[in-house]
Amino acid sequence: MKLYEIGEFGLIKKISRTPKRKEVFVGIGDDAAVIKVGEEFILYTTDMMVEGDHFRTEWHPPEKIGRKAMASNISDIAAMGGMPEYALVSIALRSDMEVEFVESLYKGMYDVADRYGVDIIGGDTTHGSLMVINVAVTGRTDKGHLTLRSGAKTGDYILVSAPLGGSRAGLELLKRGYKEPKAPIEKHLDPGCRMDIARDVALFASAMIDVSDGLASEVRHICEESGIGAIIERERIPLDRETMKAGKILDMDPYDFALHGGEDYELLFTVPEENLNKVRRYGTVVGRIVDKDMGVRIENGEIMDLKGGYEHFIE
Amino acid sequence: MKLYEIGEFGLIKKISRTPKRKEVFVGIGDDAAVIKVGEEFILYTTDMMVEGDHFRTEWHPPEKIGRKAMASNISDIAAMGGMPEYALVSIALRSDMEVEFVESLYKGMYDVADRYGVDIIGGDTTHGSLMVINVAVTGRTDKGHLTLRSGAKTGDYILVSAPLGGSRAGLELLKRGYKEPKAPIEKHLDPGCRMDIARDVALFASAMIDVSDGLASEVRHICEESGIGAIIERERIPLDRETMKAGKILDMDPYDFALHGGEDYELLFTVPEENLNKVRRYGTVVGRIVDKDMGVRIENGEIMDLKGGYEHFIE
Repeated sequence: MKLYEIGEFGLIKKISRTPKRKEVFVGIGDDAAVIKVGEEFILYTTDMMVEGDHFRTEWHPPEKIGRKAMASNISDIAAMGGMPEYALVSIALRSDMEVEFVESLYKGMYDVADRYGVDIIGGDTTHGSLMVINVAVTGRTDKGHLTLRSGAKTGDYILVSAPLGGSRAGLELLKRGYKEPKAPIEKHLDPGCRMDIARDVALFASAMIDVSDGLASEVRHICEESGIGAIIERERIPLDRETMKAGKILDMDPYDFALHGGEDYELLFTVPEENLNKVRRYGTVVGRIVDKDMGVRIENGEIMDLKGGYEHFIE
Repeated sequence: MKLYEIGEFGLIKKISRTPKRKEVFVGIGDDAAVIKVGEEFILYTTDMMVEGDHFRTEWHPPEKIGRKAMASNISDIAAMGGMPEYALVSIALRSDMEVEFVESLYKGMYDVADRYGVDIIGGDTTHGSLMVINVAVTGRTDKGHLTLRSGAKTGDYILVSAPLGGSRAGLELLKRGYKEPKAPIEKHLDPGCRMDIARDVALFASAMIDVSDGLASEVRHICEESGIGAIIERERIPLDRETMKAGKILDMDPYDFALHGGEDYELLFTVPEENLNKVRRYGTVVGRIVDKDMGVRIENGEIMDLKGGYEHFIE
């Protein structure tokens, strides 16, 4: 059996095992692993970026490659309601690369790390015929802020922190040689993360996840981990003007960028009705949590199963 | 300026910065980073393995790729005098790879993890046109066991935990299509790590490092971090019979495998004279620490500067 037959999430199921230590509060299956230490929760996450798949040097300036590598990890800590602390950076490079290119890449990483109070404390530099960057970030949080994928309940509202699809629109523009509209291209090259609101949202959210593989995939993750269903209203999904413009230029549906694209690094979260007013300013309602037997659906005139989302190994 | 002009260690100097948190006891520049938490020391290390550079699927069975990826990280924790705890595993794979291959690779990782009490608590699975495995491992230790690269003092003895050079000999044999002698080939494919003795040695050693880039390189690291010099006696470097046999077959000097090869994952440690008898059974004396102004030398009839060791980007 080949990987493309089972996909990324099929593979993860096959290779996951239950950790032995009782301190492991959450293992594989959330944005970060959670270890309980006294009254605190220590968070561990990691993300790998491979040249050709996650960035291309012909359109991705090194500083932004570094920024994105660091931000995508901090985004995972944000999605847990945590504060990031330490980072380990592994990098594979070709021998004929310019030292200045690598310094620029690290400048990008340090800039984002500094902004969010992260110390890069170690790593590994090695040779590869392809550039690869792996960042691992630790963080910490407390019971009041810890927000898992598994906490959503029937009746909760589903919100996203900002318009989606920009990053995928930008990628499609770049692939076809377009240099405008600039906003989605910039969102793809330097997506940032939502530490600015994550801790505030975490106080009221029942579940949270970062949008790295598209809305459809993230909603399904929440439903699977929480054991519930969801109905998304397609027309409520926020898209910005530039992303819609990109859709026109590319003759592609901008809703598909939001649903099935990736790397927006916005937050998707659920809140009980009584908390909705407290988080309205942090996001847009896109749907509601329903009972598990109602499935994971999207309403767009008719109601359909919510499929898709970006998944590695399946194209 | 190109990377091959400054090498791995030149690059590390350029991209390292001093961490801001006062809890960072040791940052970049040891086998693992050390964070002080109360009376304990938390250890963080990471290693990346890239297909073609660190393993080749035509001769490296997947289970042993996995074993090596996990063992090389645990070796870093061992070299700090620590006990490993948690691991994050990132992996890039091609879509047309066999699921069974990946399962086998993870079986190898889990076997080594289980043996040393490590829980794999998270990771990242992604696509790449080249296979890449990054493992990050955390561990912990106490003041009595913590052993840095920086603690060696003039007069200390320098020991290695077992015969060296086997891994490099095995690699050279494999490159040329030999299937024997088996011992060095096995040492290259499945080097293991020295957790079995590391904690005991740590109680008496003044400095310790794992031998991942060859004896020459590791001695220089100890000297640099400790601000001292060293004299290695070439004829005392332990080589096993099979490694010497490989040298003959390949018409290469087996001492070069030990001095300048890599991936033996044995321990190199220094001890003050009064502790020598307590650690004799864990290793072989290969030299002594001397004052800084005497340099880092090797004695082989005449005394020469100890150069070389494996360094990425420079071939």
